[in-house]
Amino acid sequence: MDERIVEHAAVLVEWSARIEAGDDVVLAVAPGAHDLAVAVAAELGDRGANPVVTYTSGEINRAYLRAHDDEFDENPAHEHALYENADAVLSLGGGRNASAMADVPGQTRSTHATAREKVREAYMNTDWVSTVHPTRSLAQQAGMSYEAYREFVYDAVLRDWEALAEEMSGLKERLDAGREVRIVGEGTDVTMAIENRTAVNSTASVADDSHNLPSGEVFTAPYGTEGHATFDVPMTVRGKRVQDVRLTFEDGEVIDYDGPAVIGEILDTDDGARRLGELGIGMNRGIDRPTDSILFDEKMAGTVHLALGRAYDACLPDGEAGNESAVHVDLITDMSDDSRLEIDGETVQRDGAFRWEAGFEE
Amino acid sequence: MDERIVEHAAVLVEWSARIEAGDDVVLAVAPGAHDLAVAVAAELGDRGANPVVTYTSGEINRAYLRAHDDEFDENPAHEHALYENADAVLSLGGGRNASAMADVPGQTRSTHATAREKVREAYMNTDWVSTVHPTRSLAQQAGMSYEAYREFVYDAVLRDWEALAEEMSGLKERLDAGREVRIVGEGTDVTMAIENRTAVNSTASVADDSHNLPSGEVFTAPYGTEGHATFDVPMTVRGKRVQDVRLTFEDGEVIDYDGPAVIGEILDTDDGARRLGELGIGMNRGIDRPTDSILFDEKMAGTVHLALGRAYDACLPDGEAGNESAVHVDLITDMSDDSRLEIDGETVQRDGAFRWEAGFEE
Repeated sequence: MDERIVEHAAVLVEWSARIEAGDDVVLAVAPGAHDLAVAVAAELGDRGANPVVTYTSGEINRAYLRAHDDEFDENPAHEHALYENADAVLSLGGGRNASAMADVPGQTRSTHATAREKVREAYMNTDWVSTVHPTRSLAQQAGMSYEAYREFVYDAVLRDWEALAEEMSGLKERLDAGREVRIVGEGTDVTMAIENRTAVNSTASVADDSHNLPSGEVFTAPYGTEGHATFDVPMTVRGKRVQDVRLTFEDGEVIDYDGPAVIGEILDTDDGARRLGELGIGMNRGIDRPTDSILFDEKMAGTVHLALGRAYDACLPDGEAGNESAVHVDLITDMSDDSRLEIDGETVQRDGAFRWEAGFEE
Repeated sequence: MDERIVEHAAVLVEWSARIEAGDDVVLAVAPGAHDLAVAVAAELGDRGANPVVTYTSGEINRAYLRAHDDEFDENPAHEHALYENADAVLSLGGGRNASAMADVPGQTRSTHATAREKVREAYMNTDWVSTVHPTRSLAQQAGMSYEAYREFVYDAVLRDWEALAEEMSGLKERLDAGREVRIVGEGTDVTMAIENRTAVNSTASVADDSHNLPSGEVFTAPYGTEGHATFDVPMTVRGKRVQDVRLTFEDGEVIDYDGPAVIGEILDTDDGARRLGELGIGMNRGIDRPTDSILFDEKMAGTVHLALGRAYDACLPDGEAGNESAVHVDLITDMSDDSRLEIDGETVQRDGAFRWEAGFEE
């Protein structure tokens, strides 16, 4: 087995999920992630954790959802009990066709997601971590050769996470002390409140409430958004290719959008879908290009992203509810050119370079 | 998709597992059974059942078990809760290497199985059904081409189960009314008592307490066995190839055997391992040859099998304990030639043909 797969498994189990003896773990395996699952299983055995292995297949989900009449049972007991009793969920993405669910109506997906809200909550209450195994399908999605894509994934995943965590904590401090963020770029001039919110250092470790591997972003839960934003990083949302979506905000809500119908469907999911749940700032310099995968794209150094929908509890004051929604859809804008990010009027990033980096110009 | 896969899924969900709207189902998928899983998912969606999809991989289990120190936690809470809350488990076998776990020590496997006894009980308390999707690995195990093996599997699975159930009930009535069974063939002349025992129609449906697809056997729990029997159908027992095992019985117990060492090991397990727990009579005419898979071989029409060890409760009068043992090992003998099966002196089957079939000669 490729030594990098073994290292990936070790980073996932040790750094990211902090698995210990006796932990009850759900290991969720996509059809193309078998080899990584074998390596992760060895790590779990070595640590004395207890895996239940699930299979996450777009083709199986598609067949199920298309055959269903859309009157979904709420929170099936067995699925809910599985996650309620799990300490961690390790989700290994990497399918064989990124468009496997392209012909499942968006309405069906949202109805299904809404019916399973408590299952999702139980899942989110575990020490969950999502990662991907490089597959040919993901390489194709990224417009890259398989060999080059594997290099790309391991450059992003096998980092010095402790050093990056240290750098990120500087940005977190600025955000935590700040009241307002302004993002300015081509087609974008948007402000949002962040006062009384706590930024999360997404260090790819559950110890920091960070649940993606790779990670490398600092995010918070904004509110009161005003202005407009254009998201120029191309991506696939629910099977549809989207680029240059433009959202107009007033009083914290999207009042107008320009983009494909799928964005309208998302905005119509529920009230929370029209508000932002996240402002994220990419800081992973191992990710050097968009690959049409949110797991990587949103962490790319020199980008920021805004998510419609659900906010993460970790950003909120104790006991306070943030934006609630059945959806959480990230949209990304490139900040590497003619752009700036301000906190309370101070430029913290210009043209992709942070204030503390070489090359930053006021 | 091959129409037979769709039919297989329909038989499994409708006839075998009797899935209804609202059922919480665990769909357990082996690495080679993906296509059948897609078809089953559509059936589950159509019926409004709720699947959790698990992944049963010998390679993942092997990696986990070999890395573990063998001090297994008892009955992990998440796994136990999953099955405790499930109405049915549909297990789709069909791996890519039947020997994937060959280098996991037997001691490790039994220690692991013992630690998970309550998980197993919860699983067995569901309406579970085991079937297989034809894979190249299973074709290899059967010594058949992939194409021929697929024909074989669908011939066995896609039967008129209602008609077969009807035929089987005739044999069950004779067995239930009978006092003694005698089996005569080359190297075999053995009698056993069946008075006061109830035969089970294994119709491949949980409605009849039958949990295999394919099925097609009638079985009961004999006692007081006398004589000798030779089992000429080749099979793999605990990883060892065995054929032409000969057992000699006196007063219900094996007093002598001729065969490989693994048979001696089994007989020495405990007292019950020297007595029979099952007499099974194969009635599935879709199964025309042994394929080194007990799921198929023991149901083959024109064979009978005797199992050393544990008896099934369903065959026993209420409250009465049958033969008890830690093992249940089936051995099969071909009755298609120069053989007969008698109940109370009446020949019920001769040379593979039942009394009620064309071609039967007194």
